[in-house]
Amino acid sequence: MDHLPAELLSGYRNFMGGRYATETTRYRELARKGQQPQTMVIACCDSRAAPETIFDAGPGELFVVRNVANLVPPYEPDDRHHSTSAALEFAVQSLKVKNIVVLGHGRCGGIRAALDPSAEPLSPGDFIGKWMSLVSPAAETVTGNKMMTVGERQTSLERISIRYSIANLRTFPCVKILEGKGRLSLHGAWFDISTGELWIMNRETGDFERPEID
Amino acid sequence: MDHLPAELLSGYRNFMGGRYATETTRYRELARKGQQPQTMVIACCDSRAAPETIFDAGPGELFVVRNVANLVPPYEPDDRHHSTSAALEFAVQSLKVKNIVVLGHGRCGGIRAALDPSAEPLSPGDFIGKWMSLVSPAAETVTGNKMMTVGERQTSLERISIRYSIANLRTFPCVKILEGKGRLSLHGAWFDISTGELWIMNRETGDFERPEID
Amino acid sequence: MDHLPAELLSGYRNFMGGRYATETTRYRELARKGQQPQTMVIACCDSRAAPETIFDAGPGELFVVRNVANLVPPYEPDDRHHSTSAALEFAVQSLKVKNIVVLGHGRCGGIRAALDPSAEPLSPGDFIGKWMSLVSPAAETVTGNKMMTVGERQTSLERISIRYSIANLRTFPCVKILEGKGRLSLHGAWFDISTGELWIMNRETGDFERPEID
Amino acid sequence: MDHLPAELLSGYRNFMGGRYATETTRYRELARKGQQPQTMVIACCDSRAAPETIFDAGPGELFVVRNVANLVPPYEPDDRHHSTSAALEFAVQSLKVKNIVVLGHGRCGGIRAALDPSAEPLSPGDFIGKWMSLVSPAAETVTGNKMMTVGERQTSLERISIRYSIANLRTFPCVKILEGKGRLSLHGAWFDISTGELWIMNRETGDFERPEID
Repeated sequence: MDHLPAELLSGYRNFMGGRYATETTRYRELARKGQQPQTMVIACCDSRAAPETIFDAGPGELFVVRNVANLVPPYEPDDRHHSTSAALEFAVQSLKVKNIVVLGHGRCGGIRAALDPSAEPLSPGDFIGKWMSLVSPAAETVTGNKMMTVGERQTSLERISIRYSIANLRTFPCVKILEGKGRLSLHGAWFDISTGELWIMNRETGDFERPEID
Repeated sequence: MDHLPAELLSGYRNFMGGRYATETTRYRELARKGQQPQTMVIACCDSRAAPETIFDAGPGELFVVRNVANLVPPYEPDDRHHSTSAALEFAVQSLKVKNIVVLGHGRCGGIRAALDPSAEPLSPGDFIGKWMSLVSPAAETVTGNKMMTVGERQTSLERISIRYSIANLRTFPCVKILEGKGRLSLHGAWFDISTGELWIMNRETGDFERPEID
Repeated sequence: MDHLPAELLSGYRNFMGGRYATETTRYRELARKGQQPQTMVIACCDSRAAPETIFDAGPGELFVVRNVANLVPPYEPDDRHHSTSAALEFAVQSLKVKNIVVLGHGRCGGIRAALDPSAEPLSPGDFIGKWMSLVSPAAETVTGNKMMTVGERQTSLERISIRYSIANLRTFPCVKILEGKGRLSLHGAWFDISTGELWIMNRETGDFERPEID
Repeated sequence: MDHLPAELLSGYRNFMGGRYATETTRYRELARKGQQPQTMVIACCDSRAAPETIFDAGPGELFVVRNVANLVPPYEPDDRHHSTSAALEFAVQSLKVKNIVVLGHGRCGGIRAALDPSAEPLSPGDFIGKWMSLVSPAAETVTGNKMMTVGERQTSLERISIRYSIANLRTFPCVKILEGKGRLSLHGAWFDISTGELWIMNRETGDFERPEID
């Protein structure tokens, strides 16, 4: 019986012989002092869109939440458990991060599902359907546009959704207050998983643009 | 105005000049064919515990959910939105992963909060409190044990919680069925963020053990 | 009195000393034999989007129509004069071109006007307003989408409009017939006037994509 | 399937490696600031008569309309769409160009058609016939002159037509007013596609003359 998939164990050995070996001191110090990441990233579960890879980030740098389609639900202070809200509260109030980045990407399976709400649920629980209904208001503005291609609606909703999640971040009082005081900045970015291009949200216009790469 | 924190932009440039440059063909193919990760990892948001780093994984390999304390809630097919359940449904039913790994780690801030439920909430919404209450049954067995040190209670609950989350995985019918048919394996692992050691859950006994390192 | 703006006269001298000098034989032959361009391009009047520049084309290669927003009106065989239709008829029936390319571009002033139909007319004749009303059906699907940024609506309509013009090309019987016989191909392209990138319309999906640039 | 004719794609690559590479800053600035061409050119679609080539013009310099035989229709403020009038309105009222140049050329196919109105229409729509009827009053004065050769009638009508189009420019109130105030100049030129010679219209006499070449 394999207690861990073989490729993970072999990858772990590479890590120990490679990265951990060169950064041992750093790991020990991070353990001793605690993590002090400056930035929280909300990214998608997609295997092609890992923030640590895209931003070449090392241990201690990024506090990362990953859910389907990198969504941020609106502030709902009820008695239910809210995964992304808990992570947000922890990052902002306890770790006191300075930046939150909502990182979306191309060809997102969750967004594809949101554009096709009549499709058969993946299971009787229809968790994806209910999760993606968080962006229904946004999806509806795009789904009806038959003059756009399927691909254009996909990219459009991926980017609208990032802005929508950033707006939801601001429904959290702690976020709104700290942003107003200049102690927290909200950012958006969209990663093209094919070309590797990173499109960064212009914080004034909301447009996604590429930084001048020299 | 910085549209993206400077260190992320500079990390991204390293990625483009480094990893993306050497793996361009792979990225393009993954975009074209779609992702086909064999393994889903449920990990913590902690900046020191990124699965891609620990398992030296490249694009296309791991479908990753990250939430506070790498918890899996029990199956609740109601009309609410459930982030981790949605990711699980997508991974199992759509991507048809073969393995799920619950990856915990040492010095977990979420577990620390679960061991101190009387502490002041981080915000009026108390999202961390409600989220970590998912492991209350497990936390209660440990919190009262004054003969264990704080550190021992911490490590103990981190590992109990991994087994508890694996048990919650099995409350999802699709997981239970596929595991029964031998098409899905559930695994646990605990990463020591100081020493870099990976302790793997023995699937028969539940104990966490280190693989023989050559 | 300048009979020609000075910069044009000086540019013309550069042409005579440069390009014409090296291609004299070609010019003379083209005059003698007549033009036989294989491709007709419908492009915008915009000073930043000249097809000869973008495609590095020399004399005799491209038969070019340029109007505001590179529109092709639908087939209207009435007794009025139709500039673009006349050029199309000439290219297809007399020159027998093999390809027609509708070339759009970013930041198109005509498309911007189409997205703001309530703006004050530029003159009492409101020629731009009436010309751009050719794409009203397309503009309406985009104008109402408040979740898209101004920039996103602009790019979206620029591309929808190219597809719309290609559809209008097919309302001309001579075009439809020749395309059906495999003797005429219709293409679309969108030029990013800032980055110089050329996005080519995928003739199957309608999506605009960049060719792999080595 | 070729999504774009191969020679255009290869010409585009030359452009990117050549002109765009050396003028990148200029393209980016033109995108950012908008186009501010000082001159509008009305030229023919003919593949041998591109204004950018003849005037060695770069991006941002010339706002160019191209139609068959470089005609300017008279001012007709009805409810129809008028391509050349729309471009004129945009250039004069929005871009506020200082010069308009009507650029004709030798061996013009449209003019040839105008000299032979009894020829079979190119298609049932007879768009060329109706378009070229815009110069019927001018054509009639020449067609009947049997003492001129075919070639002389051709060159004669090409030049008469340029003056006729300039007169039509003045039927547009905005053109007339701005010309009267000295803020807009109208010019004519005729390009010999064989010798490369540019004949410039003397604005006092209407004669076409060659500038002194040093």
